Amino acid sequence: MRKMKVVFHLDFDDTPAFELALVNITNFLKDVEDAEVVLLANGFAVKLFVKSSAKKFAEKLEELSRKGVKFYVCNNALNAHSISREDVFEFCEIVPAGVTKLVELQESGYAYIKP
Amino acid sequence: MRKMKVVFHLDFDDTPAFELALVNITNFLKDVEDAEVVLLANGFAVKLFVKSSAKKFAEKLEELSRKGVKFYVCNNALNAHSISREDVFEFCEIVPAGVTKLVELQESGYAYIKP
Amino acid sequence: MRKMKVVFHLDFDDTPAFELALVNITNFLKDVEDAEVVLLANGFAVKLFVKSSAKKFAEKLEELSRKGVKFYVCNNALNAHSISREDVFEFCEIVPAGVTKLVELQESGYAYIKP
Repeated sequence: MRKMKVVFHLDFDDTPAFELALVNITNFLKDVEDAEVVLLANGFAVKLFVKSSAKKFAEKLEELSRKGVKFYVCNNALNAHSISREDVFEFCEIVPAGVTKLVELQESGYAYIKP
Repeated sequence: MRKMKVVFHLDFDDTPAFELALVNITNFLKDVEDAEVVLLANGFAVKLFVKSSAKKFAEKLEELSRKGVKFYVCNNALNAHSISREDVFEFCEIVPAGVTKLVELQESGYAYIKP
Repeated sequence: MRKMKVVFHLDFDDTPAFELALVNITNFLKDVEDAEVVLLANGFAVKLFVKSSAKKFAEKLEELSRKGVKFYVCNNALNAHSISREDVFEFCEIVPAGVTKLVELQESGYAYIKP
């Protein structure tokens, strides 16, 4: 059977939506063990992955990263908000353009969920 | 010709988005008679389907249910908000994990709309 | 290689989401030259395309239109808000039902992004 694939998209630095995304992903991984899960942040949401301000979420994010969840952070948005790669959690992957990645993921069979 | 299939996703108990979803579905059914339409609620949005608090919407929801719209409500979210199955409108179907259902629906050809 | 196709969906007259959508589209077109890009507005978001109130965005929207971006505006929503076709930017295409168009676009291979 084919692996389930899903991308969760965040674009505002809206804590309730972020927390909901993390609950969603946690529930999904409990339900479907062998899945490809991506959380992609562009726009203002890249601020949610800045180490100095997101301490509260660090442990949970690291736990999900260890379970195989991929965190993609948009480089266009980092530039727009003058955030450097070093400011972002190490386990995040910087992608050149978040929107392009969102289209590519959907084209390759990822379901899209906007929390 | 293949039936059109669409899932509307709600995850906050945000009345304007809920009302917009109901308008969307009503307009869609006027336009496309023979379609598969799902409204899936997870996260805080499960509260929108609690009988005691959603009286205002009961009639409209029942009408859409009679027209074949399926209402899926996430059991993880019901548990998180201490809501029991009996509190929820009878015409709703409780699904174990809303996110998993969202992925399955998209994998089986449902379009995704987030109002 | 197949063209990338994407529809951006707006349904509230929420300026930050609108601005983010325009930044998204601009970044996407820089990254992927030959793509099919649609911005579809239904619900309250049709107000964002009313000439008299959206002057601030006119130049940017025209620029994107010249680059081939299609702006689809829902006729059901125009009627609901008593807006006539003449009030809307000329470069917009009025579609009978925005939700139906969203489903059709996804069925024909468009990725969906909700800013």
